[in-house]
Amino acid sequence: MSTTLTDAARAMFTEPIVASFTTVNADGSLQTTPTWIDIEGDTVLVNTMTGRRKARNVSARSNVGVMLVDPANPFRVVSLAGKVVGLVEEGAGDHIDALTQRYMGLDKHPFDHPDEGVRVMIRIEPEHIYVQPS
Amino acid sequence: MSTTLTDAARAMFTEPIVASFTTVNADGSLQTTPTWIDIEGDTVLVNTMTGRRKARNVSARSNVGVMLVDPANPFRVVSLAGKVVGLVEEGAGDHIDALTQRYMGLDKHPFDHPDEGVRVMIRIEPEHIYVQPS
Repeated sequence: MSTTLTDAARAMFTEPIVASFTTVNADGSLQTTPTWIDIEGDTVLVNTMTGRRKARNVSARSNVGVMLVDPANPFRVVSLAGKVVGLVEEGAGDHIDALTQRYMGLDKHPFDHPDEGVRVMIRIEPEHIYVQPS
Repeated sequence: MSTTLTDAARAMFTEPIVASFTTVNADGSLQTTPTWIDIEGDTVLVNTMTGRRKARNVSARSNVGVMLVDPANPFRVVSLAGKVVGLVEEGAGDHIDALTQRYMGLDKHPFDHPDEGVRVMIRIEPEHIYVQPS
């Protein structure tokens, strides 16, 4: 059952806040990585390469956790549990450039990772959302 | 197999950085919460109440993820996957006061949560650690 993001939660996804993104490894252990983050409607987006472990993890096990803490105010938090509903290649290159603009103030992503597969957007449907202050 | 923390990783656990702490719910979904964090030797400590979901989760499923991002430098990160090896009640009251000093500059934890069970320290043995810059 998906849920919608409140305006307060939505606002944090438009700021250059490095999110924590947690996926489940094959042995049941967890992997948490620092991640640029975005939303499109009520869908949360993580941009990555298909060869990275987080992409491989979510292709096999759809449960993920996402959290943003405002660096300027540690009591301003959005956390969500969600399910990955797809990995999308179309538009992923433009999307990483848009995130690069937001997070680094640069027009183009400065790093190329051709050995790490294909660039994709991981699409996440939020199921439970915690927002602070509520 | 446990692992040891580098000095660079260790330093971040002594700063007032709000960590992300991820546990596994009974249905396999993830819960990520903002958490005060500490270390003792190579053991990572999270202080909580036994009635909270994170405590109940780790009592049943030991895999956790922890990540710290320096609010002043988003490229300074420690992330680890670990296993919970115990919940310890002894000293947990003094421990939350020490964390309150570090995170809020107050001598005593200002909130009481008697309806949430007993205060405990979740002890976490790191298994995989990622430190940036490496």
